[in-house]
Amino acid sequence: MNFRIEHDTMGEVQVPADKYWGAQTERSRNNFKIGPEASMPKEIIHAFGYLKKAAALANTELGVLSAEKAELIVKACDEVIAGSLDDQFPLVIWQTGSGTQSNMNGNEVIANRAHVLNGGQLSDDQKILHPNDDVNKSQSSNDTYPTAMHIAAYKQAVEVTIPGLEKLRNTLHEKAVEFKDIVKTGRTHFMDATPLTLGQEFSGYVQQIDNSVRAVKNALVMISELALGGTAVGTGLNTPKGYDVLVAKKIAELTGLPFVTAPNKFEALAAHDAMVELSGAYKRTAVSLMKIANDVRILSSGPRCGIGEIIIPDNEPGSSIMPGKVNPTQPEAMTMVCAQVMGNDVTVSIGGSNGHFELNVFKPVMAANVLQSGRLIGDACVSFNDKCAVGILPNLPEIKKHLQNSLMLVTALNPHVGYENAAKIAKKAHKENKTLKEASVELGLLTAEQFDEWVRPEDMVGSLK
Amino acid sequence: MNFRIEHDTMGEVQVPADKYWGAQTERSRNNFKIGPEASMPKEIIHAFGYLKKAAALANTELGVLSAEKAELIVKACDEVIAGSLDDQFPLVIWQTGSGTQSNMNGNEVIANRAHVLNGGQLSDDQKILHPNDDVNKSQSSNDTYPTAMHIAAYKQAVEVTIPGLEKLRNTLHEKAVEFKDIVKTGRTHFMDATPLTLGQEFSGYVQQIDNSVRAVKNALVMISELALGGTAVGTGLNTPKGYDVLVAKKIAELTGLPFVTAPNKFEALAAHDAMVELSGAYKRTAVSLMKIANDVRILSSGPRCGIGEIIIPDNEPGSSIMPGKVNPTQPEAMTMVCAQVMGNDVTVSIGGSNGHFELNVFKPVMAANVLQSGRLIGDACVSFNDKCAVGILPNLPEIKKHLQNSLMLVTALNPHVGYENAAKIAKKAHKENKTLKEASVELGLLTAEQFDEWVRPEDMVGSLK
Amino acid sequence: MNFRIEHDTMGEVQVPADKYWGAQTERSRNNFKIGPEASMPKEIIHAFGYLKKAAALANTELGVLSAEKAELIVKACDEVIAGSLDDQFPLVIWQTGSGTQSNMNGNEVIANRAHVLNGGQLSDDQKILHPNDDVNKSQSSNDTYPTAMHIAAYKQAVEVTIPGLEKLRNTLHEKAVEFKDIVKTGRTHFMDATPLTLGQEFSGYVQQIDNSVRAVKNALVMISELALGGTAVGTGLNTPKGYDVLVAKKIAELTGLPFVTAPNKFEALAAHDAMVELSGAYKRTAVSLMKIANDVRILSSGPRCGIGEIIIPDNEPGSSIMPGKVNPTQPEAMTMVCAQVMGNDVTVSIGGSNGHFELNVFKPVMAANVLQSGRLIGDACVSFNDKCAVGILPNLPEIKKHLQNSLMLVTALNPHVGYENAAKIAKKAHKENKTLKEASVELGLLTAEQFDEWVRPEDMVGSLK
Amino acid sequence: MNFRIEHDTMGEVQVPADKYWGAQTERSRNNFKIGPEASMPKEIIHAFGYLKKAAALANTELGVLSAEKAELIVKACDEVIAGSLDDQFPLVIWQTGSGTQSNMNGNEVIANRAHVLNGGQLSDDQKILHPNDDVNKSQSSNDTYPTAMHIAAYKQAVEVTIPGLEKLRNTLHEKAVEFKDIVKTGRTHFMDATPLTLGQEFSGYVQQIDNSVRAVKNALVMISELALGGTAVGTGLNTPKGYDVLVAKKIAELTGLPFVTAPNKFEALAAHDAMVELSGAYKRTAVSLMKIANDVRILSSGPRCGIGEIIIPDNEPGSSIMPGKVNPTQPEAMTMVCAQVMGNDVTVSIGGSNGHFELNVFKPVMAANVLQSGRLIGDACVSFNDKCAVGILPNLPEIKKHLQNSLMLVTALNPHVGYENAAKIAKKAHKENKTLKEASVELGLLTAEQFDEWVRPEDMVGSLK
Repeated sequence: MNFRIEHDTMGEVQVPADKYWGAQTERSRNNFKIGPEASMPKEIIHAFGYLKKAAALANTELGVLSAEKAELIVKACDEVIAGSLDDQFPLVIWQTGSGTQSNMNGNEVIANRAHVLNGGQLSDDQKILHPNDDVNKSQSSNDTYPTAMHIAAYKQAVEVTIPGLEKLRNTLHEKAVEFKDIVKTGRTHFMDATPLTLGQEFSGYVQQIDNSVRAVKNALVMISELALGGTAVGTGLNTPKGYDVLVAKKIAELTGLPFVTAPNKFEALAAHDAMVELSGAYKRTAVSLMKIANDVRILSSGPRCGIGEIIIPDNEPGSSIMPGKVNPTQPEAMTMVCAQVMGNDVTVSIGGSNGHFELNVFKPVMAANVLQSGRLIGDACVSFNDKCAVGILPNLPEIKKHLQNSLMLVTALNPHVGYENAAKIAKKAHKENKTLKEASVELGLLTAEQFDEWVRPEDMVGSLK
Repeated sequence: MNFRIEHDTMGEVQVPADKYWGAQTERSRNNFKIGPEASMPKEIIHAFGYLKKAAALANTELGVLSAEKAELIVKACDEVIAGSLDDQFPLVIWQTGSGTQSNMNGNEVIANRAHVLNGGQLSDDQKILHPNDDVNKSQSSNDTYPTAMHIAAYKQAVEVTIPGLEKLRNTLHEKAVEFKDIVKTGRTHFMDATPLTLGQEFSGYVQQIDNSVRAVKNALVMISELALGGTAVGTGLNTPKGYDVLVAKKIAELTGLPFVTAPNKFEALAAHDAMVELSGAYKRTAVSLMKIANDVRILSSGPRCGIGEIIIPDNEPGSSIMPGKVNPTQPEAMTMVCAQVMGNDVTVSIGGSNGHFELNVFKPVMAANVLQSGRLIGDACVSFNDKCAVGILPNLPEIKKHLQNSLMLVTALNPHVGYENAAKIAKKAHKENKTLKEASVELGLLTAEQFDEWVRPEDMVGSLK
Repeated sequence: MNFRIEHDTMGEVQVPADKYWGAQTERSRNNFKIGPEASMPKEIIHAFGYLKKAAALANTELGVLSAEKAELIVKACDEVIAGSLDDQFPLVIWQTGSGTQSNMNGNEVIANRAHVLNGGQLSDDQKILHPNDDVNKSQSSNDTYPTAMHIAAYKQAVEVTIPGLEKLRNTLHEKAVEFKDIVKTGRTHFMDATPLTLGQEFSGYVQQIDNSVRAVKNALVMISELALGGTAVGTGLNTPKGYDVLVAKKIAELTGLPFVTAPNKFEALAAHDAMVELSGAYKRTAVSLMKIANDVRILSSGPRCGIGEIIIPDNEPGSSIMPGKVNPTQPEAMTMVCAQVMGNDVTVSIGGSNGHFELNVFKPVMAANVLQSGRLIGDACVSFNDKCAVGILPNLPEIKKHLQNSLMLVTALNPHVGYENAAKIAKKAHKENKTLKEASVELGLLTAEQFDEWVRPEDMVGSLK
Repeated sequence: MNFRIEHDTMGEVQVPADKYWGAQTERSRNNFKIGPEASMPKEIIHAFGYLKKAAALANTELGVLSAEKAELIVKACDEVIAGSLDDQFPLVIWQTGSGTQSNMNGNEVIANRAHVLNGGQLSDDQKILHPNDDVNKSQSSNDTYPTAMHIAAYKQAVEVTIPGLEKLRNTLHEKAVEFKDIVKTGRTHFMDATPLTLGQEFSGYVQQIDNSVRAVKNALVMISELALGGTAVGTGLNTPKGYDVLVAKKIAELTGLPFVTAPNKFEALAAHDAMVELSGAYKRTAVSLMKIANDVRILSSGPRCGIGEIIIPDNEPGSSIMPGKVNPTQPEAMTMVCAQVMGNDVTVSIGGSNGHFELNVFKPVMAANVLQSGRLIGDACVSFNDKCAVGILPNLPEIKKHLQNSLMLVTALNPHVGYENAAKIAKKAHKENKTLKEASVELGLLTAEQFDEWVRPEDMVGSLK
């Protein structure tokens, strides 16, 4: 491999000749061989593109960077944003906890790419831009990395996570409407209970997702606050007056998202409670999705020895040994995703709780976990929606069979014969394997006509229908 | 011990003669000998008092319960609320996952106590009230227990948790103001960094608590929604029309809190995402408090071999073997509380994710953990506040010594000599154990006068002061 | 209330006149009003009794404590061990993270109780024993509290946790033997699968518990190592030669458990990885028990609309509104316990990871959570065993119905007709609602006689029976 | 792109013409677009290579597979093991929870690759091997995937995780020896305490890692048990007699690792407690490493305003804004890894607790998290070792300064003047900013000569040295 010599404040470093990154990126590559290469999330890289572009524009507007330099930075940043320089970001999550090296990776790539865009060569001794003095102007890793985290997390939430949730929510809502008149047995404690409609059952899932989306949106309010402008420790040292507000406005314009400058930069660098909160909202969403996916899995169980009240699409052969077997694979993928998100939340919380003084140095691991959670939830909802939820059908014969058999219809008799007499009926029916009507009449507690009048499953689902 | 015979739908049970509870409570006592007795949180018991009272009032208003019975129920409930019947609730958390047995404990105690208040005897065969048909009228465990959870959680949050947080927040805010002109060295990565004021450092803590309180309040919006009226599976079977809205209104009036009926009762019984969300907000708060307590602990470390920039009150001898030792015990209690709250959140999330069909049967463990977290946070904040935060003093000689020594003051030279030259100065000073001024002049990069003009710590903290 | 004046190195303190505790305990009571009173686990208190007794004996044997003083200490310790002084330990978990105040609580109570046993008065100015110089001789909180943790944890594991697990294990093993010839449908992915026997199913549970017990015992090896003798920072300052080995031997003799002195006292004070490991073993056990309890819950679901292949005892009325309902309450209590243990493990791990330098100061919260987990597992296993597992019966008609219906019996045809043809049979049977035999014959893939010969459920369970 | 038509029991599927995978792999690719492509861990893929090879050999030996077919399977498997077919495994973690599709991916690739190795074409209608009937012979996903998990986890543990831990352990041990005579102040509660040697401090770290390795090895005992031979539900249906024992022996021979057949296949399919246990051992290791890395980070803090008792290597510029700053980046990477491993353990535990009946369907997420934890720990230890631990130096001037200043040397006076008098000395010295000797003499409690004789730091570290 060919190399060129780059230098930083520690001296010279050999860098692959054709790469845009510089000395500090290369040092990090060599110093942190932990896990797979290039694990720093791409969403973070692209967010740095927005950030560096906004900073250059703000710096120019405030008179601390020439328009020419800003223009070059903007050009290179546009390539970062577009993803065309993704392969210039080889660093891993497991580096310095401030993400300094990924910030420098961005600074170096942008500076060198701008130099080349300007007609220079990577091998030139003098470059038109300095990674620190120009690209990183009015910035510190300490305020850029958390800003990139927030940009990446917000964008992903509104582009991937929430749309995925809403897609699934809408399908489930359609099913709730479609199934609104299908009366079925309820189940509590996994045991037969009073009836409800299949639509009512699905309406609960819809409410769960609605509430999850609301929680995510609540968390995004804090994610909209950007640390940029705090620089090294939150004081804004080496930034021009008005920079923090302006640069947040630029980022808001570039992304089309409602970013503002954080009200307290000391908090914004030293704590990443906003990320903890978003992770918590994702975890809460995972808890909801786990319930929904489990219900779908179990309601569709069978085909002959399970609950079997709904039918889900057959997407693939289910077993390498049992011919003809079909399994609820989408719910399985979903519940695995939920388990991951719940664990990720612990990682994020541990990271968040371990900041010291002016800086939290668990930034990359927090970012990576929040972004994985947001991605997995969004993708899994789309997959579950497209390959399972849209195709859910009621299994009417099974539903009817269960409903007719359920002893818990006896609850409708409480107002007529009292709880204790009703219990006698149910127990007799259960013990003697009879119908409730038979048991009622045999006990002399009511007539067959009264039974037919009072015990009507379709009337038992109505009060809150 | 003397016993009386009580019965339920399963038959007769011996109950201690002087206890108000009945057959089902006694069965649960015998069936669940897990952990210490009477572990069901008292907050839940008292919440049942509000709930049963509100239900009686609503039932009467809607014409399904006589005014006489309602009046008796109300009287007994007032005693439950006041805590004077606490010793009549012997059950544990580790019972049925619906909390049915604690609901029945409430029904039985209220029915029997009302009977006695009405002049009857516990040993009477016939009682004036029936636990199920009267006290539990228009209710099911499935909607009462989650309602009690929400009442208990909301009350505790506004009476204990938030006031504790705000008390500590206000003290820290006073300290932030008091310390606003004390310039000190910053620390990032636990390493010396550019300066800030001690007040700025504390302002970050204030922001963290403000954000935590906001998160808790966001979660309370969902806690304000009550399941009551859904009865067995969410359909509202056996409730009079308008009951759900009315009973929530009654509870709101009795508690003075903004409770409303839940928009979807199926969700409210089958999922306890609201509790998961509140737990998440408490966990996020714990993450914040862990950071703050750790900072206070480490900033006060020493007295001679640590960081030592603040002084905290000496509350007790710190060691049974090292004479004269004083330790940061309040931060220690606080961080232990935070670890507990973080673990509790996992318990609550696992419980929340494991509901099936129409009911989540992890209710008591979820309630107990959320209530423990809320209580511990509130109490620990008051303790930390009263015994530590209010007495925090700056250790001015140490602060000054550190500030003067810090090599990171060199950052102020970036705009004048560039990042790389500034780095040369810092490295030379470090290596040769010199001051920055000495190193600067020796390197010929600036004059002593320029140094004095450019490197002024008090000017380095100002931009976002 | 009457008070007497006690003093410590910080000055005078008013203590309730009739209490054995002294100044430092009283300070802690006043300084830490967090959560319920006296929450420090009783197991820890009793362990301090063993520890202080052993230390007194070792000190005397090594010539640094008079036999008279030792005798008095031993007498008082015996009362601590017996639990008769439990009400003299009012402190909470949420105190100093070293547990110093509970160590001093022990020292003070023992010193004062010994003085009274010796004929003195609590109000005497001079006491026969000094809490620090005599009762705490050759000790520091830093080595006593972790030693007490280990004593308490080991004792509980062998007296409560493991016996509970083994009791349940033995019952499940009996069931496995009893059910060894009951062929039933298997279920994978919650879907019908090839058959196995009910006994085989239960044998898996037995193996899970066996493995759990093994894991707990592995962890106890580390718990058997005692920090005592390390004193303040692990160097053993102020201990006589040979003390650490001797005092561990004394504790082993007093408890009948295989305690030894820790090979490295620095680790034993600064880290509580042994407690993390035991907590991990309990968590792993909880994972096993969650699976078992869920299976029992779901296998017994119904009675008419569920899986219903086993019958579990009816212990109490299951619903306050649905008459005659019976629920799987023991599995519910068990799974709630499991959720608690899984969360506790996170608390313990966070505490364990946050030690600094020579001391971990999350001792009380770690101890409390490990001991709660151990207690809950042990108690819940006994409860689940006595009230559920021993009464489990097969529901033979349901088992037979499911087995005969299962399409996955087709798997037995793989070796005869190949996977793809077998799949065709299963799919045809499913689609046309036919039996496998009918479908086989109609497809012309085999004769009815071949079907009867090849598809014999009782032959499909045998290879590993 | 060119396609060929493949089929499975559900019908035809278009597959990229040049890929070895078949219909079921392609279905899974299309059905599970969740997160990045090809996320199924490579370690699992390679483990399938060993497994399928061993199965072929065992099948032939037991007479159910021709030697010719076995030879072809072996050839293809060798390529899988070597990693040269890695790009033929495009599936993600988030698929069916049994990992069936990755098992089929293996079956299809091996069958097709064998066909090509045998001179055939991918486009041939008839292939020499059938993925299910030949490659998957005597297997089910239900026993292969868990077997692959165990093979992958065991190999990684002994090839990556344990060697990494031992490398770091050995370096720390060398440091412990090297630093054995450097007396320094101890710190408990982050406060000055009695002295110890720097070597003693490091010896605690060594013990922590030794214990961690022991815990991992304990867990590996269970990982050595293989599910293979249980097939669909644990009964071993469709396997020849003796197959389970033989195939485990083959795997042991091929890998050189002590694999055996699991004693109970029902447990081995339905529960993955062994993986939960290994994850727990990794979590416990992470707790240890977090403590060690934090100590190194804080002990090296400064350079002028921190603790500064050790010096760690400067690997890279530490700040993009603060010139000359150097940060403890290796400890930061390590602690981030630890946070990840701690969260992963929660994911694994949730997955492990949610198995039902004869199968746990959280296999891929459990495998992925355990393997990530094992990899990260191993890699991070090597990185921390090579780039940090080996270069740790004592900062003798700081160590000496702190030691001389520490007030806790007063503890040496306890045996001479008693705890309370010693406390008076310490308090006076602290309050009046004097040395302990000055305070001692002024209080008249001892002479200067006695002080010099009794207070010798080097004598205070000795008892357990």
